[in-house]
Amino acid sequence: MCSLDFSWFNSGHFVDVIEWIGTFAFAISGIRLAAKKDFDLFGAYVVGLLTAIGGGTIRDLLLQTNPFWMSNSRYMICTAVALLFVILFRKHIVKLNITFFIFDTIGLALFTVVGIEKTLGFGHPFWVAAIMGTITGVAGGVLRDICIAEIPLIFRKEIYASSCLLGCLCYYICNYIGISLVANQLLTSFVIILSRVIAVKNGIGLPKLKSESD
Amino acid sequence: MCSLDFSWFNSGHFVDVIEWIGTFAFAISGIRLAAKKDFDLFGAYVVGLLTAIGGGTIRDLLLQTNPFWMSNSRYMICTAVALLFVILFRKHIVKLNITFFIFDTIGLALFTVVGIEKTLGFGHPFWVAAIMGTITGVAGGVLRDICIAEIPLIFRKEIYASSCLLGCLCYYICNYIGISLVANQLLTSFVIILSRVIAVKNGIGLPKLKSESD
Amino acid sequence: MCSLDFSWFNSGHFVDVIEWIGTFAFAISGIRLAAKKDFDLFGAYVVGLLTAIGGGTIRDLLLQTNPFWMSNSRYMICTAVALLFVILFRKHIVKLNITFFIFDTIGLALFTVVGIEKTLGFGHPFWVAAIMGTITGVAGGVLRDICIAEIPLIFRKEIYASSCLLGCLCYYICNYIGISLVANQLLTSFVIILSRVIAVKNGIGLPKLKSESD
Repeated sequence: MCSLDFSWFNSGHFVDVIEWIGTFAFAISGIRLAAKKDFDLFGAYVVGLLTAIGGGTIRDLLLQTNPFWMSNSRYMICTAVALLFVILFRKHIVKLNITFFIFDTIGLALFTVVGIEKTLGFGHPFWVAAIMGTITGVAGGVLRDICIAEIPLIFRKEIYASSCLLGCLCYYICNYIGISLVANQLLTSFVIILSRVIAVKNGIGLPKLKSESD
Repeated sequence: MCSLDFSWFNSGHFVDVIEWIGTFAFAISGIRLAAKKDFDLFGAYVVGLLTAIGGGTIRDLLLQTNPFWMSNSRYMICTAVALLFVILFRKHIVKLNITFFIFDTIGLALFTVVGIEKTLGFGHPFWVAAIMGTITGVAGGVLRDICIAEIPLIFRKEIYASSCLLGCLCYYICNYIGISLVANQLLTSFVIILSRVIAVKNGIGLPKLKSESD
Repeated sequence: MCSLDFSWFNSGHFVDVIEWIGTFAFAISGIRLAAKKDFDLFGAYVVGLLTAIGGGTIRDLLLQTNPFWMSNSRYMICTAVALLFVILFRKHIVKLNITFFIFDTIGLALFTVVGIEKTLGFGHPFWVAAIMGTITGVAGGVLRDICIAEIPLIFRKEIYASSCLLGCLCYYICNYIGISLVANQLLTSFVIILSRVIAVKNGIGLPKLKSESD
């Protein structure tokens, strides 16, 4: 009698929810940095938006297709909600750092998978798809850091892009073996999330290039 | 007998004149900042050019169409004239600050209206046109500030993008009511110019985001 | 009897070799700057890649065509080799400064010529081709400097873009006179290389814009 309704959990809706979570977390990261740099409301909104949609926009320009956010206003709305959230819960947001880290990592995984699949759909070889997946995941953060006139974080700290690339490798192998698409998507996301969580928990980073004078 | 010739004032020529004024003022603002930062002539020209045509170029890339400046060399020439102007009248240019402020604001208004209409002409919904209008008006200044390694001014000070957005709102309402195109263009420009002049005169800015540690 | 084999030297292969040299030198310049700024391996690779392919990518986006590097993975591989080279020969690389200067200048010449010809091939007028040639040659370096949060070097020092522009002028004149394509390419490259070598040897730079307070 009492049957639970899992229709919400079907593929389309599920991806939508993940996309909201990812967009929201990316926007929050941009808005928080903007607040530290004394930005006004407009500036904070733009930096939040660039962080959230910048990677996908660069990907779409390189693929010679219409930027994805033009066909749906949800990304604008989601960033506005994120701005409101930061204004209202400013004092408490620090306590949510771990939550945002998780959201951000889930977003990274989804964005990477979306980037890979969109590029393959355009008929490009896999190495191009891997680059596009990584751009989708990380380029928004690079634009964010350029807007606040700092050296992009991902070039110096944190396993972030490396998780994307590991995910791309996983996707390629799964695809080669012939695993089903959904299983591949889940496994790739899992690899990205797990590798980032492990790296951050243990303070693992890529080795730095030594300067010539060292 | 003595009839004044107003043919010069017909729509096409009038817009051309406004466009020259706007391009010139935008280029001047880039070149002056470059001079402060010790740029050479080439650097100053490029920064002036980016300030003048950067916003429209980003808009055209996002709209998947040829950048507007490729079909007419006037923007290159106008920037060269601006560079010559700064070189020749360096000492006196400060006295013209109010004139340049007016020119810059007129340019902002025209660029915003042009951006809105071009986007609507591609069949996009109005909220995309509002974003494109704002990008056309302000993104050149953002590129300028990135080139001189500073945080973009419009993210921290001045009602500037907000005037664009107010203008977009005005355009939308006028369009909805059914006012004629020319009246709409003039009214929208008027709203953008007036709101910016009032804001700058009274030192009105958007509220800043408070940092988490405040 | 003893005939030398110059087939390697035929046009296609020769241009390929020059392109490798140029890409390698551009990537090295990005990676070395990244090392100074404490970048990790991923960051250094990305900055090297942006330096090498950034100019051509911006050109292709403006021309509304697929970015050139998507059709051949050689640019990715060449940048990886450059990264390995910097890691292995870090201590000795300073001694090779003159070699890299030569490679870099050869790359600049080739990239400029390629940019001019690709743009003319799309039916644009010559002044657009000159801009695109210059963008192909110098915009990668601008992106590199933005990524390390510094004011782009070419806006303040060195005859660099000016050599490109001089080369463009040479190309135009040769084309106008009716010199054969190959002779034009060689002469244009020669003008770019010679003007840069002379300028750097003699410390010649463009005049700077004086600030308004001077």
